[in-house]
Order: sequence, then structure tokens, then C-alpha cells
Amino acid sequence: MCELLGMSANVPTDICFSFAGLVQRGGGTGPHRDGWGIAFYEGRGLRAFHDPLPSADSRIAQLLVAYPIKSKVVISHIRQANVGEVSLVNTHPFSRELWGVMWCFAHNGQLDRQLFEWPLTYYRPAGTTDSEYAFCWLMDQIRSRFPGGPPEDANVLIDLVHECCEKLRALGVFNMLLSDSDRLFSYCSTKLSWITRRAPFGEAHLCDRDMSVDFYKETTPNDVVTVIATEPLTDNEEWARLSAGEMIVFADGEVARLVSTLGGAKD
Amino acid sequence: MCELLGMSANVPTDICFSFAGLVQRGGGTGPHRDGWGIAFYEGRGLRAFHDPLPSADSRIAQLLVAYPIKSKVVISHIRQANVGEVSLVNTHPFSRELWGVMWCFAHNGQLDRQLFEWPLTYYRPAGTTDSEYAFCWLMDQIRSRFPGGPPEDANVLIDLVHECCEKLRALGVFNMLLSDSDRLFSYCSTKLSWITRRAPFGEAHLCDRDMSVDFYKETTPNDVVTVIATEPLTDNEEWARLSAGEMIVFADGEVARLVSTLGGAKD
Repeated sequence: MCELLGMSANVPTDICFSFAGLVQRGGGTGPHRDGWGIAFYEGRGLRAFHDPLPSADSRIAQLLVAYPIKSKVVISHIRQANVGEVSLVNTHPFSRELWGVMWCFAHNGQLDRQLFEWPLTYYRPAGTTDSEYAFCWLMDQIRSRFPGGPPEDANVLIDLVHECCEKLRALGVFNMLLSDSDRLFSYCSTKLSWITRRAPFGEAHLCDRDMSVDFYKETTPNDVVTVIATEPLTDNEEWARLSAGEMIVFADGEVARLVSTLGGAKD
Repeated sequence: MCELLGMSANVPTDICFSFAGLVQRGGGTGPHRDGWGIAFYEGRGLRAFHDPLPSADSRIAQLLVAYPIKSKVVISHIRQANVGEVSLVNTHPFSRELWGVMWCFAHNGQLDRQLFEWPLTYYRPAGTTDSEYAFCWLMDQIRSRFPGGPPEDANVLIDLVHECCEKLRALGVFNMLLSDSDRLFSYCSTKLSWITRRAPFGEAHLCDRDMSVDFYKETTPNDVVTVIATEPLTDNEEWARLSAGEMIVFADGEVARLVSTLGGAKD
């Protein structure tokens, strides 16, 4: 399995503190030694860092822990390989362009091999993971339904993404983070926790290393910053847990929409 | 204008030496202060580093000068903005997926605004540069002609890329580097120089900073490494210059094909 980390904020914010906790799980406090990646949106621009080395040993990860890149949407992933060899091409997050927007995706879980029989039209995986295949399939569904651009009613798009996630969850474990540069779609199959920090800000302490931050000193009173992760990253704050089949869409740090599982059997 | 740097090699090779020279031109010895980027292929995997800051001041560039990432194909670019504001989304190299392959592209030059009227089908730019638009158009041409996968005869693909480059050159200055993970397509409109290093290896000295490397110590006798750049990066070696309209395709460090300008008027 792998670990996911995402952020949505209403002002460009660095994720150094949370990332410092996450990278410890990549060969330090956790077994996720098979590469890591992180993607930052800056407006519509996306820059990603990928490394097939364990994050706890990675020079690039060390730089990012110390070098604040400010972003409103971040997606990160550390990998413990199941399907697909350890290599750069299989390192999350993955990205594809749709409607002139770079979409970005990371997945935690494992899906049945029958996934690889689901037809693909526009997007094809470069690597061999179930995760990238699922991402290509998901992007295909969105593009097929809305070839010219996003629907006017964002809820229609959100419902489609949720419906696709439910179909993927039927094949196994499918926790995912997805972004179109504005929104952070967070779908839970088994494990995903989140916290929104806003004024009055307090101090937070990491679970995975003895490191604290006083957000009061690091923020302004209007900042709203949501962090979402496979497991809570701090041990002195209250994180909310998503239930199986739930998807929260965050925008500007706030919950834009919560979609619950549809319940009945899916085709 | 901007500066391009590319590498093609028959074994995974780091580009630290050449990159150390290039980054000096980004706000040091040269005026290209408007961001930089570098993309490394590792097999079919592609990892890119982008920074809208001047490369001469960039912490990420400093890391890459000192941290050898070994690759057989590299594309790098430092930017002096003309069309499109200075921002991450406008920072080269750009990438798009076709046939399950991540293609990567960087451009030096400027194209007439009528480019933006050329129709796009599959790919759309995320940013506002003529460069990314030209890349999307080029990928569209390849995909439209070969929707299912690459042609059996690679020369047919190479001819198509050259033909498209000629059309783009008719709109202004179009020096470019393009890769499909195996090949490095290098098209010259005004300025592009290259050198192939192979045994017996010697010492090279950078133009842009007082730095030398003895490739004899860094290589094995079978290594073949080609470096291509807007201007020669070393001052004690003989670089070849491409002519206007010429495209060289490198693979495994060797010239796989040289295509000259077609001469006659193009539609």
C-alpha cells in the first residue's frame, strides 16, 4: 500500500511541515520505500518532483522539506509497490492534460487485474501500474462525456468523478486524490483523514518525527488550509475520517461538496 | 530568446557539467532570467523540474548541478520571455502523452501570432506561450496521422515531424528539441550546435564558468554521449552547427538521421 497527502488552501501555502512527516514513512517510520512524488499547482501551472528512491533517503525530498514552495493545491504520494515494478515511470503522481488543464492524480490501494481490460480511448498509461491505468480510464470517462470543456454545472462533473470512483472501488481498494488545478477531489475507499486549519491557529506536532509548528506564526488570520492524508500526520489535533465511498471536493481550503456512497449495486 | 540544452546517450549519463554551464546563462552570464526547466527520461519514465525563478539563483538548479541524475535523454531550457508572462505554466519543457509515451518539448524562438489560429484537436495548451501552442499543434499532427501508434517505418514519423517544423519555421524562429523517450529530435531554425563525445575522451572546459571535467575519468570506453545546445557550452572542443531547416534525430548518442530543409515553398 501507499500513503497519500494532499492540500487545498485559499492562499499559496507551503506544505513543508506535513511533507516532513510523510517522507519519514518512506523508509523511516513506514515501509513505503518504493519511490515518492509531489506535485504543486501554481495557478494552472503544475510542477512535479518524482523520485524512485525512498523518500527518507532522497536528496530531492530533503530539499523540498527545507524549501517552501507555495501552492494552493498539492498532491503527494509515497509508494510501496504492489502492481508494477519500482521505476520512475510507475511513480505517482501522474498527470494528463484535458481542456488545456493539467490534471494530477495519485492512488492508494490495489485493483483487480480485470481493470486492464477496461477500454481506453484518449489516454494510455506509460507505465504498468493499476493506478495509472485507472487514472487514464477516469480521464477518458470525463473527456468522453464532456469533450469540449467542463460542464457549466460543476456538480455534474463531480457526480461523474464519484460514479467512476465507485466503479473502480468495486475492483478493490481505491483511495485517490485528483485535481484539475482548482479543486482537490478526495475519494475514500478504506482510509483517508483530513483536517482544516483556520484562525485561531495553534501548534501542531508530527506523529512521525519530533517536530512542531506554530501555525499562528506562519499564517494570516484569513488563511484556510486543509490537509488530507491516508493517516493523520499530527498527534495533537482532531482529524476527520472519510467513510468508504465518500468523496470530498475541496476548493480554496473549504469543503466545496461532500458526496456519499450511492449505496446500491453498481454496474 | 531562450537557450536550449539536450542530451542523447547510449548509457544513462548525468548532465551536471553541461547544466552547470547552462544555468549561468539564466541571470549570470546571460539574460535568460525568466525561469528554467529540465526533463530526464529514465526508460519511459519522465521527470521534470521546473522553476519560474532565474536558474542562476535557483535552489533546485543548484541541487541538480550537484546531484547526478543519470538519463539517456535530457531536454533543458532557460527562458527569456517574449510571448506569455513569467509563470510556472509558461515554463518549458512541456510534455504530453501520445501512444502511452510521454513526449517532451522545448523551444527557442518566437512565432507569428497567426499560429494561435491554427486549429487544435486533441491537445490544448495550459499556458499562453507560442511554444506550448506549437507543441500541441505538432502533437496533434502526429496523432491525427498515426492515431493508433507509431508507424512501422520510423522515417515516416521523422519526415512528418520535419515537415511540421518547416511549417512552424515559416512563422518565425523555431529551434526545438523534442523527444519520445528514445529519440531526440533537434530542429534548427537559426541556432543549434552539437558535439558527440566518445573514446578517446578528453578534458572539456565550460565557456560560462571556470569549470572543467575530464570525461576520461567519468566514462567507460563504450560510452557515446551527444550534447546539443543553442550555443556551444565549451571553449576547447569543436562543436558542429546545424543549418536552418536541418533536423538531426539522435538515438543512443548517435545520429540516427539528418533531414535537410526541403527547399521549395511550403503551404
